[in-house]
This record gives sequence, structure tokens and C-alpha cells, in this order.
Amino acid sequence: MRVALLGCGNVGSALAELLTAHGDEIAARTGTRLELVGIAVLDLAKDRGPGVPAGLLTADAKALVERPDVDVVVELVGGIDPARTLVETALRAGRPVVTANKALLAEAGAELAALAAEHGVDLLYEAAVAGAIPVIRPLRESLAGERVLRVMGIVNGTTNYILTRMTEDGSDYEEVLAEAQELGLAERDPSADVSGDDAAAKAAILAGLAFGSEILGADVFREGITGVRAVDVAYASRLGYVVKLLAVAELVDGGPDISVRVHPAMVPRSHPLASVRGAFNAVFVEGAAAGELMLYGRGAGGAPTASAVLGDLIDAARNLRAGASAPPPRRHPAVVRPMEDLRSAFYLSMDVADRPGVLAAVAAVFGRHQVSIRAMEQVGLGDEARLVFLTHAAREGDVRATLDELRRLEAVDRVGGVLRVIEPEVGDAGVGAAAPAVGG
Amino acid sequence: MRVALLGCGNVGSALAELLTAHGDEIAARTGTRLELVGIAVLDLAKDRGPGVPAGLLTADAKALVERPDVDVVVELVGGIDPARTLVETALRAGRPVVTANKALLAEAGAELAALAAEHGVDLLYEAAVAGAIPVIRPLRESLAGERVLRVMGIVNGTTNYILTRMTEDGSDYEEVLAEAQELGLAERDPSADVSGDDAAAKAAILAGLAFGSEILGADVFREGITGVRAVDVAYASRLGYVVKLLAVAELVDGGPDISVRVHPAMVPRSHPLASVRGAFNAVFVEGAAAGELMLYGRGAGGAPTASAVLGDLIDAARNLRAGASAPPPRRHPAVVRPMEDLRSAFYLSMDVADRPGVLAAVAAVFGRHQVSIRAMEQVGLGDEARLVFLTHAAREGDVRATLDELRRLEAVDRVGGVLRVIEPEVGDAGVGAAAPAVGG
Repeated sequence: MRVALLGCGNVGSALAELLTAHGDEIAARTGTRLELVGIAVLDLAKDRGPGVPAGLLTADAKALVERPDVDVVVELVGGIDPARTLVETALRAGRPVVTANKALLAEAGAELAALAAEHGVDLLYEAAVAGAIPVIRPLRESLAGERVLRVMGIVNGTTNYILTRMTEDGSDYEEVLAEAQELGLAERDPSADVSGDDAAAKAAILAGLAFGSEILGADVFREGITGVRAVDVAYASRLGYVVKLLAVAELVDGGPDISVRVHPAMVPRSHPLASVRGAFNAVFVEGAAAGELMLYGRGAGGAPTASAVLGDLIDAARNLRAGASAPPPRRHPAVVRPMEDLRSAFYLSMDVADRPGVLAAVAAVFGRHQVSIRAMEQVGLGDEARLVFLTHAAREGDVRATLDELRRLEAVDRVGGVLRVIEPEVGDAGVGAAAPAVGG
Repeated sequence: MRVALLGCGNVGSALAELLTAHGDEIAARTGTRLELVGIAVLDLAKDRGPGVPAGLLTADAKALVERPDVDVVVELVGGIDPARTLVETALRAGRPVVTANKALLAEAGAELAALAAEHGVDLLYEAAVAGAIPVIRPLRESLAGERVLRVMGIVNGTTNYILTRMTEDGSDYEEVLAEAQELGLAERDPSADVSGDDAAAKAAILAGLAFGSEILGADVFREGITGVRAVDVAYASRLGYVVKLLAVAELVDGGPDISVRVHPAMVPRSHPLASVRGAFNAVFVEGAAAGELMLYGRGAGGAPTASAVLGDLIDAARNLRAGASAPPPRRHPAVVRPMEDLRSAFYLSMDVADRPGVLAAVAAVFGRHQVSIRAMEQVGLGDEARLVFLTHAAREGDVRATLDELRRLEAVDRVGGVLRVIEPEVGDAGVGAAAPAVGG
């Protein structure tokens, strides 16, 4: 099987090295020999390291995709243009495509999947979400018969690293971000990560797989981590929670409506996602029959992502040889429930004047908007007091109206942290909640 | 696609219910209609509940497998006979088989895989290891190109429940076992679970997938949890470890020799496997390129296991329609390194007479056998003292010789706990060890 590689950054060069240095070993293990026949790059002069055969480099990606001796195309260019045109050209020529391009899939995944199906070839993208972690294939194949209820992912390593450090060292966001940039764990311009944009693209892809939704990445509600304060992370910790940036796709009220969103959330410490630390990623799936599953591992990095691409490549090569292709995911235009109509428990903290009647006035605002308080704590801060609330599940629109009104109260100086709370009973992998284990 | 179901216990009846009550939904979601045409059971008179259509029951499994209108066979009979004959009959008739039968696969997996390949049909067994958790397909497909270094699984829910309770409540083994039996979390006769036999069969299957080994379940070294004492679990906890029953398959010294074994081990609290509590299962995989992965979920129970069977069934039906079949796993007769030649760190505790010179005598025994001590603690117990040692990595044979000699020392009253220790640096998902996350 002759492979054309488009793009040769971190992942591309790791893949080139796997295919050239370990080609015999892979052939022995899998029965499939993958021969790299060309690598399209923008800059022919750039040094790619010893693992990348210089003789295979070309600046003409389009010509490479159209070369008659190419069997399979790997797209690691990233972004929309020219990646989209190249992928479409390959699929139209009957060539399976393996891609790690989350931005392209979040924008045009449904059209590309339809094009692949039309030409009877594979479009595989295990590496597009959560790097080396098998997520796409389990959702598409292992859980094909499963009624998926919810998918919650920690799918951005940079933000999980920052939140982990804030949790474990009590550091401030800006401080940890600066340090992460020093260490190469965050980009110089970290906005795509910290804004939730990167996670939103992945949420759209996961929603497509789990629910057949055609939601675009651009339409996914997102809230980043720039507003997460050390003080709220510390309160969360005292209350038994860990703050995580979650990409969520779920059935609302049992379906058919779905919700797809990205935001920081307080996750109970007993939840499997709470123990996902540093730059690691994980995707937690709740199915009607399967129960709770979690897939965990390295979500980024050249070699781990190349490993996922290689798995897809072997699959595509086998299917091509057998004249088969992976079934396209079902696509149904799902109705996405607007954010303000969702229900969630909330954590809210605010600084208020420390004088009689203030708490009553604040509590009255909650009551007027049907937001019921589950727990409350008051801490003195000189002339001010800090109030921390945990609410019962409430409609997001009602919580927003509560906050708007609170901000207008004269006695409220500042509304600080606002975090959605994952309820402890959902996904508690505790001993009590464990499935019967008779028979192992 | 017409499905014959052999066996109708917990898993079989959950599967029958999925196929009958949710058949339309599954067809809409997957494009594959699965029609249950017969269910072979031993006792026709037994009530199977409302989810199992009584009209499909038959006592003649062989006739059902051979019925000309059957496309796919699901084997949930368990055990070797008559399951093996039924599976062979189906494969010889060109019918794909989906099975959850770990005992059969651990005894005859290689032969059955060869038979399936010879007849060009699928033999799929996702449900045989770790219930609903996608483990087999990720190892077989997602990681097809990956050089797997090690697989470590918590694959028996009963023993993980018992060890979790011992860890969290400080209870004794017998006490927790009795309670687990009351709760239906352990069998009346728990020996297959607590002896490690069940986990050993799964270890053999995992070794076959990861390394192409043809080791039989019966040949896997196993040590159960009956010797794990509350006092050792408590010491482990103080030292920062959790005791887990692990099924391990790994390359020794970079390969090609492998080790396949089951034993209790002290796992560092920071390791992802340490947070797998109660009856949950998880499989941790270390790959050369992919790094560390963990697949987590419910390892048992009717509905979760039926979900895994259903995923395989959909796959088998699609392959059959496409005239394709999943590639058989590569099989290479791997050389299994004998247990006594493996190296591991050890935890050892012993009660000794509390008098001068004893520690020196004990330490001298360690030294004579080249077992180097990493940490040691002495606790007074009246006239006795308890010595707790953590060793550096040492050859298992040398540790055994050390223990034999120590038991013969007049001053040593009893050698108590002996536990292998997973080194903290391996698989530490800590912030420091995290992969670079640039680009998400």
C-alpha cells in the first residue's frame, strides 16, 4: 500500500519515521506493508530531521494526491484550506483518507463523510480527537449498537495542564499560563486552547459520532478558562470537586434533542474524569446498556498522534484491499437545545457588603428566579463578605437572570466565579455504585 | 441478518431484549437489522423474563447452529464443552461467531482464530475481557501499528471490589468476601475469582492480542488475593500505594521474551489504575509511540456485556455483507520468561524477635541474595518487632531464596505479606510527566 503524506510537522515527521524505520516490523505484525511514496510540505528547504527521507519531499501537494501510484492519503496539513480541497480530491479519486484535522472535520465532516461514502472509500480520523486515545473507533464500532446518553471529554491538554496546576499548587491562571508557555506546554498565542475553541471543534466531532448530529464546531457553545480564578478552584476543592474544562455532548431529557457545549465545570473528586491530570486527555461515555466507560491517554504530541494515524492507515489499507470501507456514521440533523434551556447545578461566588439584610436580599433574588439553593457559605473579608452558593439543578436562563439582577443590587460588589457543577451521583464510580460483578 | 443465540443467562437475556425491544432503533442507527431467529437453552421450562421471546427457545443448540437461515452465531454458553464444538461447527459452516467465552478463548483461541481465518469469517470476542469496555478492538485495530510494551489490567470485578473495601474501610479479606457474597458481588464459590484463575484466562487473551503469544490460560502464572492481609493493605496505603489484582502481559527487557502473569501488586496512588474502584475494570496499555492509554468501565453485568456483544454482532454482520472479515490477530509462539527470572520491586513484611542483632541478621540474608533494600521500617509489637521492607528491583528467584532463608532464621517468627510493587515512575500520569500539549 502506497501512502502519500500531506504535511510534515510534529505528527507528520513522527509518522514518516514510524513508516520508514519500523516498516518491516509493522508489516510483520499486521500483514500490511505501508510504503511512503511522497511527503508534501510548504518549505522544501526546512530540515525535517533524520527520520524523514528528504528524497520524498515535494512542494506540490495536489500533484502528489493525484499521482496514479498512490493508494492512501494522509492529511496532516491542518486548517481548512487547502486541506479540504486536497481531501476532496483524494476521495473523488477513490483514495481513502486518514486525517487528524479537527478544524476541517468540525466544519465539513458531514459533507466529507458523504463524499467518502459516495466513492466507497474510508475517511478515518481517530487522531483528530484526543490523540493516541482510541475514541472514534470505539464510538463508531464498539458502541455501534449502544444508545449513547452522554459523552464528556477532557480533550484539550493545555487547559487541563493549567487547571491541574491551579488545583494542586493554588496558583493563579496567569502565572500557570506563563509557566506553561515557558515549558512549551502552551502556545505563544494560547487563545485557541484557553478560549475553548479547540475543544469546541472536538465536541462537534464527538456529537456527530454519538448522536449523528451535524452541528458545526463554530456553533458549539463555548466558555473558556480565562475567567477561572484560583479562589474558585480552591473553594471547589474544599467542596469535594475539581475544576475541568469539559466538552459535553448529551441527549437532553432522554432525547431526541441534544446539547453540545464546552465550559469549565466542577467535577466530583470521585468521578473518573477528576483524576485526569496534566496534559492527559480522557473521554467519558455513558451508554444505556454499557454504563460508564472512560478512554484515557495522551491527547497530543507527535508520536502518540502518529500512532493513531497509523492505526487508521492500517485499517484503510486493509479495507481498500478487501474492497470494503468503514460504514459512514449515521447523520441526523439533531435539534440542539439552546444553552439557556439546559438545567444544571451551579457554583456561584460573590462579594457583598457585610451588613444586615444583605443575605436576605440576595437569597430573595435566587427565589424570584426559581433557583433553589443547595448549600451556602459566608466568609468575612473586612467590610465585605464573600458568599458562596451551590444551587440545585436550575435552568441556565434563570441562573443568568439571577446573576443579572444580583449584579444590579447595590450591596453586591462583584459576582466572581460562576461554574456549572456535575452532580456527584452521575458517574460515581464508587464502591456502592458498582455494577454486580458476579462471574468476574 | 439472522442471529442464533446460544445460551440465555444474564448476558443472553439482556442481548435478546436489546435485539427485540430495540431492534428498530438499532437498525436506524447502524443500517443493520439484526433478527433473532433462535435461542438455545438447556432448560426450556425456565422463566426467562418478558424480554426473551419464548417462541424462539430451543433445546437443540447444534440444530440451531446448522439451520440454513442463520447468518451469525452468538455463543454465550460458557465453558469448553459443548461451546467449542458449537463454535467450530458455526465457523466451518462459514458463519461468523461472536463469543464472550474467556475460558474457551484462553484454551483454544489460536486454533479457533485459525479456523475462522480458514473459512474467511469473523471470530469476535470483545465481551470476553472487561465486559463493556472496548479493549479487544482497540488492541486489534487502533493499536495495530503500535509496538505494545505492556498491558496491565484490573479485569476481575469481584477481587477489585474486595480489595477496594479492604483499602477504604480497613476490613479483613474474609469479612469483605462474606459481605460481597451477601450483596451478590461475589459468587457462593468465589474460588475462580479470588484464586486469579478468571484473570489468568483474560491475561492469556490480552497477551495473544498484544504480542501474538499462544500462551494458554492454564499456563499463566497466577497468585490470588486470599493471602492479602488488611495490615499489608494499610502499610501499602501509608507508603502511597493501593493493592490491586493485576493481569500483566509485557515484553521483558524490550522483548522478544514476554511475561504473562496475575498477582496482587502495590500500584502507586498516582497511577491511573489506582483510581479504579469497586467492581469496575480497566486495562492500561503502554505503547512505544502511543504512550500510556487506559480503557475503563464496567467489566461485568448482563447489559454492559450484552452491549459489547452487540457491537461485535453489528461488525460481524457488516463484514459478512461486505464479504470481508476482521483480520486475524498475528500469532507468534512467544517465549514466556519464567516468573523467577523476572525483576520487580517487592514489599515484604515479617515479624521478628525484638532483640539486638536481629535486624543485622535479616539484612545480611537480603545482601547474600543480591536483594537491595530501598526502604525499611520497624514497629514494636511487645516482644516482637514488625519489619517492613521495600526492595529495589530484584530477581524474583533471588527474593524467593531470601524469603526461604528468612523463614529458616530462628529470630523470624513469621513472614507475612509479600507483594510485588509497580514502580512509581512507570505510568505516572502526573503533571511533570505529562506529554507536551502544544496544539491542544
